[in-house]
Amino acid sequence: MAAPGDVVVVSNRGPVSFTRADDGSLIPLRGSGGLVSGLSPVVASTGALWVAAAMSDPDREAAAQGTMDVDGLRVRLVDIDAVTFTAAYEVVCNANLWFVHHGLFDATHRPAHDHRFDAAWASYRHVNVAMADAVAKEAPEGAVVLVQDYHLTLVARFLADLRPDLRCVHFTHTPFTDPDGLRLLPDAAATEMLAGLGAHVACGFHTQRWADRFVACCTERGVTAPPTFVAPLGPDPDDLASSAASPAVATASQAITSLAGGRRLVVRVDRIEPSKNIVRGLRAFDLLLTQYPQWREKVTFAAFIYPSRETLPEYLAYRQEATSTVAWVNERWGTADWVPVVANLGDDYPTSLAALGAYDVLLVNPIRDGLNLVAKEGPLLNGHDGVLVLSSEAGAADELGDAALVVNPFDLAATAEALHRALTMGDPERAERATALRSLAAAHSPHTWFDAQVAAAEPNGP
Amino acid sequence: MAAPGDVVVVSNRGPVSFTRADDGSLIPLRGSGGLVSGLSPVVASTGALWVAAAMSDPDREAAAQGTMDVDGLRVRLVDIDAVTFTAAYEVVCNANLWFVHHGLFDATHRPAHDHRFDAAWASYRHVNVAMADAVAKEAPEGAVVLVQDYHLTLVARFLADLRPDLRCVHFTHTPFTDPDGLRLLPDAAATEMLAGLGAHVACGFHTQRWADRFVACCTERGVTAPPTFVAPLGPDPDDLASSAASPAVATASQAITSLAGGRRLVVRVDRIEPSKNIVRGLRAFDLLLTQYPQWREKVTFAAFIYPSRETLPEYLAYRQEATSTVAWVNERWGTADWVPVVANLGDDYPTSLAALGAYDVLLVNPIRDGLNLVAKEGPLLNGHDGVLVLSSEAGAADELGDAALVVNPFDLAATAEALHRALTMGDPERAERATALRSLAAAHSPHTWFDAQVAAAEPNGP
Repeated sequence: MAAPGDVVVVSNRGPVSFTRADDGSLIPLRGSGGLVSGLSPVVASTGALWVAAAMSDPDREAAAQGTMDVDGLRVRLVDIDAVTFTAAYEVVCNANLWFVHHGLFDATHRPAHDHRFDAAWASYRHVNVAMADAVAKEAPEGAVVLVQDYHLTLVARFLADLRPDLRCVHFTHTPFTDPDGLRLLPDAAATEMLAGLGAHVACGFHTQRWADRFVACCTERGVTAPPTFVAPLGPDPDDLASSAASPAVATASQAITSLAGGRRLVVRVDRIEPSKNIVRGLRAFDLLLTQYPQWREKVTFAAFIYPSRETLPEYLAYRQEATSTVAWVNERWGTADWVPVVANLGDDYPTSLAALGAYDVLLVNPIRDGLNLVAKEGPLLNGHDGVLVLSSEAGAADELGDAALVVNPFDLAATAEALHRALTMGDPERAERATALRSLAAAHSPHTWFDAQVAAAEPNGP
Repeated sequence: MAAPGDVVVVSNRGPVSFTRADDGSLIPLRGSGGLVSGLSPVVASTGALWVAAAMSDPDREAAAQGTMDVDGLRVRLVDIDAVTFTAAYEVVCNANLWFVHHGLFDATHRPAHDHRFDAAWASYRHVNVAMADAVAKEAPEGAVVLVQDYHLTLVARFLADLRPDLRCVHFTHTPFTDPDGLRLLPDAAATEMLAGLGAHVACGFHTQRWADRFVACCTERGVTAPPTFVAPLGPDPDDLASSAASPAVATASQAITSLAGGRRLVVRVDRIEPSKNIVRGLRAFDLLLTQYPQWREKVTFAAFIYPSRETLPEYLAYRQEATSTVAWVNERWGTADWVPVVANLGDDYPTSLAALGAYDVLLVNPIRDGLNLVAKEGPLLNGHDGVLVLSSEAGAADELGDAALVVNPFDLAATAEALHRALTMGDPERAERATALRSLAAAHSPHTWFDAQVAAAEPNGP
């Protein structure tokens, strides 16, 4: 296996971003998001170099310093023209690739590609070239390059010319579309993306299902698929435990207890994101209250949902839809003493941890999700033998399915039934499932996940 | 091969429907639609029995007569309770299975299954049982039963118990969804549908692509896939020619010539149906006029689009969207002498035939389509060496692709480019492509298609 110093991580979002202080100096901030929070401790401990895009003007200033040491991480930010970066990130990545991989397009109306897509795709290619150039300059001889996610599918293709000594491995954090979904992209872009992925030594995914979809897409387009490997990410149980032990979480836990007011507690924690299926979750809760009157005034649904990607109209509309559905459920069922759904739109990490510690039922019902880390964090944090109601379309269902109550996310009736079953489940079954979930959720850590990517670069790996 | 009299055809819509005359008597009308118009002459010539659902009260009255001889066809209509039939047809077939197989669901919002789906699915099962019962009563010993389309996926499963001597073959006229699309149905219904199809001796599709999708769905659900076969339907060239020779078509042709007014003519002929992609076709025409000013006042787009399934809100909305897009294009580009888009919403067969005879360019750009018979009828009828611009997502593209200009239907820029290329194409290339298209479009007829289904029932077939 490669020595730790011979590994380079490449991702769109980096482990640090910068902001400008009043005195004009640059202040580093720790990044967020599943990829970054999963990778940061591992990269810090291995000494690997992390190459990421500068995402703001302060980031671009910091990029001029070259490779930096920040919080024990060796970081190289790549300065990319803001207009080019925005076209690649918002148009290609967020408004097209994300939608394709998550099956979110309303095909009757969208997409409708015109010359603007071609221009944005040229920007996407440019970003990939810029990242490849930076890696080519910084990477040690023979290094393993771990390229992360759908933002950077073309890096290995450009590196193949610049630095044929490097061994590039790609890891996709999202689902991967099946061949019919891929047809929603312009043909040339779709094929270029697959060929870019095909330029890696190996391509990794959170579940076999996404790996199979990727290979099916390659087969249909006549692209030679590289070897694939499956390496699910998992939370670091020790990190989680130490975060949960903070005074802020203790305070938040009191607030959660008070919010529940002795009632049973259903919790969800998500970005406000169409793929997370927040509205159907609320409608399933409404159906639970309709079908099973015994839960009226006896259950509170605490939805920790925080705004995301609001430059996209679909996300703004979905936020509006989610909050108006909360209001509708509360108007329909609320009483003087009971607010059925408490929605918290603040992105408050201690409160989310406290809620995951306290739930009786955790609802994770995405339309489609690469993995869903909350489904693993919940069972590791929960102290009530809480039940996990989990979408079959979350990658994590392949690992946790036997211990969770698995539901089809498009099926409100099945979701409502699963909530009812979770709320009525006897203590022995709850304990048994919770024990199994803890064990399954801890089976993979950021370290094992990282090591699997490095191992996939070996001639005999993955 | 089975003797002709030993074949039974089963379909939802039959070759005749009934209406009541003023004197109360029942008047038979010839059915319409691709399946019926393709099958009717073949069935009439073979003497096969045709079992179909009674779709109206006059149909139900006629059903009481038992097997009827109408226009040389032996027809048995099956009387199914109207409420049951409507739930099966409108909820399961039109609002769910059609949407799944054509990739039309806006997954962020729809579907959202509740107990009403379960009730509708029970009706769907009931319709399939009723059709199986009728076949069981009527079919000769050892007959081959040709079950048509997504309305009747469960018939063979029930016949297996009632009449194990029969050999059932299924043919799907729509696309078949890939496994991710199948997940939009409730799990039990999806698996029951696949198992129902799996109870046939063989399952046929218009292209290999749909057959592959079906097998992939079976594999993912653990259902043993039956043998599959590919048998594309084609028009009967002689029938088409005799229809086109009618006085009504001659009159309509004069109207088309007058409409074009010496300008180039782009034509489309479709039901108003989201999968037909009418709005993007209009937007691509708008983009053509934007990008290539030389076509302003020089081309007319004649859109023969007729309303369909207007009990579904999506179809009503799509009609509104299509007609308002027509108005928008005309307001943007129209002049005192030139209406850029002429939309004709009357379902007028002679006029459609006349338009297919007269086009310079035929636009067939569906989002997804099992086959698309217009793409074959056009080249057989056209007298101008007209160019076919054809969606890669129409099943017919697998047969006609080399001679057509194939476009990604989600790509407006590519579609506008193809229209421009078609309009500027030189006479030799037009003639060469038109000759090739005529030959490809005539390669399969209703007779060869029917025979392929019968052959698939043989122990050594398909």
